[in-house]
Amino acid sequence: MKAAEYVKAGGIVFREIPDPPVGKSDVRIRVAYCGICGTDLHIFKGHMDHRVKAPQAVGHEISGVVESVGSEVSSFAPGDKVTVRPLDNCGQCGTCKAGYTHICENLRFLGIETPGGFAEYWTVPARLVHRLPEEIPLRSAALVEPLAVACHDVRRSGLKAGDLAVVNGGGPIGMLIALVARQAGADVVVAEINESRLKLAETLGFTAINPRKEDLAAEIRAKTEGSGADVVFEVSGSEEGAGVITRLARPRGTIVVVAIYAKPVPVDLHKFFWKELKMIGARVYEKNDYEQAIRLISERTIAVDALISRVFPLSGLQTAFEYLTKEPDAMKVLIQCSEEKE
Amino acid sequence: MKAAEYVKAGGIVFREIPDPPVGKSDVRIRVAYCGICGTDLHIFKGHMDHRVKAPQAVGHEISGVVESVGSEVSSFAPGDKVTVRPLDNCGQCGTCKAGYTHICENLRFLGIETPGGFAEYWTVPARLVHRLPEEIPLRSAALVEPLAVACHDVRRSGLKAGDLAVVNGGGPIGMLIALVARQAGADVVVAEINESRLKLAETLGFTAINPRKEDLAAEIRAKTEGSGADVVFEVSGSEEGAGVITRLARPRGTIVVVAIYAKPVPVDLHKFFWKELKMIGARVYEKNDYEQAIRLISERTIAVDALISRVFPLSGLQTAFEYLTKEPDAMKVLIQCSEEKE
Repeated sequence: MKAAEYVKAGGIVFREIPDPPVGKSDVRIRVAYCGICGTDLHIFKGHMDHRVKAPQAVGHEISGVVESVGSEVSSFAPGDKVTVRPLDNCGQCGTCKAGYTHICENLRFLGIETPGGFAEYWTVPARLVHRLPEEIPLRSAALVEPLAVACHDVRRSGLKAGDLAVVNGGGPIGMLIALVARQAGADVVVAEINESRLKLAETLGFTAINPRKEDLAAEIRAKTEGSGADVVFEVSGSEEGAGVITRLARPRGTIVVVAIYAKPVPVDLHKFFWKELKMIGARVYEKNDYEQAIRLISERTIAVDALISRVFPLSGLQTAFEYLTKEPDAMKVLIQCSEEKE
Repeated sequence: MKAAEYVKAGGIVFREIPDPPVGKSDVRIRVAYCGICGTDLHIFKGHMDHRVKAPQAVGHEISGVVESVGSEVSSFAPGDKVTVRPLDNCGQCGTCKAGYTHICENLRFLGIETPGGFAEYWTVPARLVHRLPEEIPLRSAALVEPLAVACHDVRRSGLKAGDLAVVNGGGPIGMLIALVARQAGADVVVAEINESRLKLAETLGFTAINPRKEDLAAEIRAKTEGSGADVVFEVSGSEEGAGVITRLARPRGTIVVVAIYAKPVPVDLHKFFWKELKMIGARVYEKNDYEQAIRLISERTIAVDALISRVFPLSGLQTAFEYLTKEPDAMKVLIQCSEEKE
């Protein structure tokens, strides 16, 4: 099969590789689209060579169609539209036993610790495959995985209809959180420093604020009679972001840490104490987040297509990574891994 | 009446001052004991001159006996044993209206923003007075206020029987948290760097660890098959403390920020995200925390007397502050404000 393999920092090779065997419990998927995640970009830049065994195809945000199934798989059949929840947990650790299998202490992330979806076919355990409704466009369905992240973040936040939510950082995940939070009944403010993303947030109907040009905390206070936001999603991953979250939240408000921080950053624990804030970490997704994301896309409740900046062919993965590296305005980039047969 | 007034940084004057009037809704209490809080020590050092109008008696951890009541007060009568919940909220702000009156946005703290309990008599609004059972010793009852802080912290943590709790910092509040958490059924580890406090923690039956001598995180992992503590109370207020909390908690564990931090400190938000931790700020107490603290002391369920290091007379408040400043081993220090008539 054709695959676009990561070989070294900055280097992708598009080539023919052997078809992996389909195990008894596996499903072989003809990949339609595979989105590029921030993590994939980190891999491309060589930051994750301790987790990726080059040469290896990476990628984990896929939509596709079942091509064949292993001898013990009865839940899927060739022709089924599917996506993959790429979290392979151990089932043995204390965290798995406590029911938090998505943050398993020995988690293998398919497409990082194992070969991924930037290939014509992806063979994965059937238990990690989710069926998609027939009517879902495969192009939109490539966003199930990042949308499930947003569903998880909003669910973990405890956000209620009527709440004011601030999404601090308007990249693909931030924008998806904003869409899910609005769908849940919240009034949403998106804070972002990139003007193109700010414009997109406005086009999508959000109040968009550039915190380098306006006093974000003052704007939020003005909207809330001085109290602050009910929920703050920190998606910027910046020291500036970590500095402002405790000022944005109302007393007893909730902060959700979505972003990945490379190193410890200063947090105002005094404000934290003073306002009795709650801060929650939210990582990846659980099964019900996937089910919600599939429902939101298939019912066209959330218009994920607006976030797709470009679609490249599988042979153009190197170019796609270079585009993402150079283009701060880019949102979600998809790789089309095989011809659609719809 | 006699009072020990704060006049300037490092200066207390013991003298006769005019009796304040007893308003219609007030209760005049003959103060038996008034404990010295960390906040009082900050005031003594001149760090809080923006909140205290010198000359002024401070102090807010009292026990006493009602001496007289205002014309509209029917809930108390002379001779009643009482203590004071010193939080005077506005009732108008968004936080009060949301029911969190203890963190009112315009909170007046009796004994800081108003005259306090280092005096023969303290006159306060009746609605902030709690009745004490007849059998409670007034000396122990001076610890109702700090014990209510501990009750609030443990209640906010969501700690359950069988949990492993780490109390990071074994001063008076940390030790009271440890006692309340154990009473709630937790296995408690106290981390502290002062050897005398470590010894006290051991005497009280806790596992006591000096994190400068042992690897605290490794010890906690060893006790939990690698997972970590269910609940971590950060009571140290140190940068070292803020650095270790995210390592001590298990995946989905809870951190409670009890300590007061003078400035923002680095927090490992990546571990926070990775383990989906929860961090909660906990400040002062609510009415039910006071009721629990009174019950725990009057039923002698929690032996607060073990934490009393010294008792000074009201005339010796200056000496008491100097003792606390010089003596790192000191735990709770009480001021006896009037002769007991029991």
